Amino acid sequence: MIADLSASDLEAYGARIRADYDAFRARGLKLDMTRGKPAPEQLDLAEGLLALPGNRDHFTEAGDDARNYGGVQGLPEVRKLFSGALGASPANIVVGDNASLAMMHDSIVWALLKGVPGSERPWSKESEIAFLCPVPGYDRHFAICEEYGVRMIPVPLTGHGPDMDKVEELARDPAVKGMWCVPKYSNPSAELYSDETIRRLAAMKTGAPDFRLFWDNAYVLHHLTETRHEILNVIDACAAAGNPDRAFVFASTSKMTLAGAGLAFFASSEANVKWYLARASKRTIGPDKLNQLRHVRFLKDEAGLLAHMDKHRALLAPKFAAVTEALEARLGGQGAASWIKPEGGYFVSVDMTTGSASRVVTLAKEAGLLLTGAGATWPYGKDPHDANLRLAPSFPSLSDVKAASEGIAICMLLAAVEAEQAKRRAEAA
Amino acid sequence: MIADLSASDLEAYGARIRADYDAFRARGLKLDMTRGKPAPEQLDLAEGLLALPGNRDHFTEAGDDARNYGGVQGLPEVRKLFSGALGASPANIVVGDNASLAMMHDSIVWALLKGVPGSERPWSKESEIAFLCPVPGYDRHFAICEEYGVRMIPVPLTGHGPDMDKVEELARDPAVKGMWCVPKYSNPSAELYSDETIRRLAAMKTGAPDFRLFWDNAYVLHHLTETRHEILNVIDACAAAGNPDRAFVFASTSKMTLAGAGLAFFASSEANVKWYLARASKRTIGPDKLNQLRHVRFLKDEAGLLAHMDKHRALLAPKFAAVTEALEARLGGQGAASWIKPEGGYFVSVDMTTGSASRVVTLAKEAGLLLTGAGATWPYGKDPHDANLRLAPSFPSLSDVKAASEGIAICMLLAAVEAEQAKRRAEAA
Repeated sequence: MIADLSASDLEAYGARIRADYDAFRARGLKLDMTRGKPAPEQLDLAEGLLALPGNRDHFTEAGDDARNYGGVQGLPEVRKLFSGALGASPANIVVGDNASLAMMHDSIVWALLKGVPGSERPWSKESEIAFLCPVPGYDRHFAICEEYGVRMIPVPLTGHGPDMDKVEELARDPAVKGMWCVPKYSNPSAELYSDETIRRLAAMKTGAPDFRLFWDNAYVLHHLTETRHEILNVIDACAAAGNPDRAFVFASTSKMTLAGAGLAFFASSEANVKWYLARASKRTIGPDKLNQLRHVRFLKDEAGLLAHMDKHRALLAPKFAAVTEALEARLGGQGAASWIKPEGGYFVSVDMTTGSASRVVTLAKEAGLLLTGAGATWPYGKDPHDANLRLAPSFPSLSDVKAASEGIAICMLLAAVEAEQAKRRAEAA
Repeated sequence: MIADLSASDLEAYGARIRADYDAFRARGLKLDMTRGKPAPEQLDLAEGLLALPGNRDHFTEAGDDARNYGGVQGLPEVRKLFSGALGASPANIVVGDNASLAMMHDSIVWALLKGVPGSERPWSKESEIAFLCPVPGYDRHFAICEEYGVRMIPVPLTGHGPDMDKVEELARDPAVKGMWCVPKYSNPSAELYSDETIRRLAAMKTGAPDFRLFWDNAYVLHHLTETRHEILNVIDACAAAGNPDRAFVFASTSKMTLAGAGLAFFASSEANVKWYLARASKRTIGPDKLNQLRHVRFLKDEAGLLAHMDKHRALLAPKFAAVTEALEARLGGQGAASWIKPEGGYFVSVDMTTGSASRVVTLAKEAGLLLTGAGATWPYGKDPHDANLRLAPSFPSLSDVKAASEGIAICMLLAAVEAEQAKRRAEAA
C-alpha cells in the first residue's frame, strides 16, 4: 500500500514510477481509449451487410416493397428477430434508424412537448423536472438532460444497480419524471442490475404519475465471458407491479453490426408504443426498411444473432483481459485504485482516490494517451470526487490496448504517489 | 358550360354523366391516387443501390471508415454532390437520414425547446406562435404544426407563389414565427415561386426577429418537361436582403433514389448550420454514412444525378399527361373545374366549384378510386371552400392512371351537375 510506505520508501518508489512514466512517454505513442467504438475487425464481422440486400431482393415477408414509403413501426420480421433480446412481443417493438440515442432523445422531446401516457400536462409545462442519474453513467444521456434543462440528480451505483433506498426516497418527489438506467453491463461500471433492484424499480411509489425508466439496454447481448448473463425483464416486472407503462426500453445494433449504420429499438407497453408511433408518424413516413431487410438477411434469426455476438466476444475479451491484467499487475494491492473485471459491455470503470482522476487524464495525455475526460461519467461533466475514470479498450488493436493499459496503470500509480506526497506535505505543514 | 344549360338539357346531360359513372363503377376497378409515391419502375432506376457500397468499399474520400460512429454533418463528398441542387456550399449543408420531413420536424421541435439563432426565448415560451401556410399545401407540414400547437394561417397561392401583400401584412405579427414554402413545383399546385416573390419573402419586415422560412425544396430536380426550371436562390436572396439566417432549406433524395431509404438535407446560413449541428449532436453520434457512400457510388456526380432525374421524368411525364388530357377531354370548357398542367413535382391540383371536392372523393371511392381526402391540402384538414383536390398519378401504372383519370373526370362532372341541380332547386324554392 502506497499509504503505508515510509517517507524514504515513498520517495524512492515515486522516483521509480516517474522513471517508468518518462520511459513510457519517450515511446511517443498515440493511443486513444476515449470512446466505446467497435474496432475495424469487429465491423469486418458485418461486412456482408455492405452488399445486401442485393439487387431484386427488396420484398418483405409480407410482400411489401421495402424501397418505398411507409411502415413506421418497422418490419415485422425485424421485430420478431429482436423480440427475445428486447423482452417484448413484436407488436410492442418499434424499429428506428441508427441510433437508439435518437429514440431516447425523441422520447424526451416528445414528453416535454406532449407528455407521455399518464401525464397531466407536457413535461415542459411543469415548473421543474428532474431525472435520477445512477453514477458513474453515460455522458450522452446526461447531455440530453442538460440540453433540455432537465435537472440531474446523481444516485450511487452499488455493484448490483443503483442504491434503491436512495432511489425510492428521491422518486417520491413529483418533479422526478424519469431515471436513466443501463441495467446490463452498465456504462461504465459493467454491473448487472439485480432482480431485487429491478423489482423495486418496477414497484416503487413515484411522486410523478408519469414517471419513466429510460432503460437503455445497450449491452443486452454484449457478453465478455461464456456466461450470457440475463437480467429480469423490466417490462414484465413493471406490469406485474401494476405499473405497466413505467419502462421505455431502448437498444440498438450499433455494437452488434455497424456502429454507424445500425438499427435502433424502442420496446414498451402497448400504450407507450401507441404513443411513440403517434409521435413518430408526425416526424417520418417510415424508417429505412432496406437497412432492416439487410439486417434480417445477414443475421437470419436469433441463433444467427447470438453466434454473431460470440465473434465480437472473441475479439473483445482479450482486450478487456489486457486492461485488467495490467491494472492488477501494477496497481494490485497498492490501494491507489479499484476496478471491476467486466463480464460484458464496453468499458472498464476505475475509481481512484479522491482528486486524482483529472491528474491521470493529464499525465496520460502528455504521454500520448487519450482518455475520456475526468468527470464525463457524471452529470454536467462534474465528478465531485474527481475519482472515476472510464477506459474504453474496444477500438485500438490488442497490442495497442496492452501498451495503453501499461501506460494508464503507470499514470494512475504516479498520480497516487503524487497525491500521497501532497497529503503528507499538507499534514507536515 | 354546365351553368348555361337549360333545365331539360341539364337533366339529359346529368343522366348521360350518371350513366358514364355507373359504367365506370361497374368495371370494379381498385385504383389509388392518394399519395405521391414513386412507382416500382422509378425505384427500379435505383436498384443498383441495393448491392452498394459493396464489400470492402467502406472508406470515405477522407479515408474514414464509414461503418463506424461519427460525422454528424454528413460526408463532404455527399454535401458536394448536392451542393448545386441545394444552392449552398458544402460547409453549409447537413446530410440526414431518411427523410427531410424528420429534419423539418426536428427544426421545429428544437425551435420550440431551444429557440433558433436570433430568438429571445424558446418558441414554446411565447404565449402563442403561428406559421403562415400557403394553400393548397402539404398535409404533413400542417400535421407537424397541429401536433405542436402552432397556429396555422392560410395564405392563398397565386400561381407564382403566395399572395405577397397578404404575407407581408401577416408577417408583421410577432407571433408569426415561420412559413411553410414548397417553392418549386409546389405540392400540390405545381407552381414556381417567382423571383419577385422570393425577393419579397427574403426582404420583408417580420414582427418576429427569429422568423424562419421553412423552404421545402422537395421537387428541386423533379422536372416533367425538358425545361429544368430554376428558381431564385433563397439563401443568397436572404443574405442580400440583410436577413442571412431567415431560410431553412430542406430537400431529400426520397423521390430521386429510394422513397424509404434516401438521404435528407438541411442547408442554411453558417449560424443556422452551427445551431442545427449543435442540436443534432445531442440526438445522434452521426447519420448512416454507408447510405451516404452508397448514394455517392451510385450517382457519382451532379451530371449523374441529373441524368438519373431524366429517367424519372421519362416515366412520370406520360402519367401526368394522361391526367391532364382526361381532365381536358371531359371537363374542358364546362366551368366545373380548373387545373394547371404541372411542369414538375408530383401532383395535379384541381379546383372545383365551392362545396364539390368532398362529393368527388365520395363518388370516386364508391367507384373503387381512392383520392386524397378533400381538405387534406388545407391546415387542420379543412378546406373552407371544399374545392381543392390533389391527384397523385406517380404510383399506379400508366394504364391505371388513364383509367383513374377518366373516372375522376366523370366524378367531377357528376358532382358539378349535382351541384348545379341543387343550386337551381334552391333558387326555385
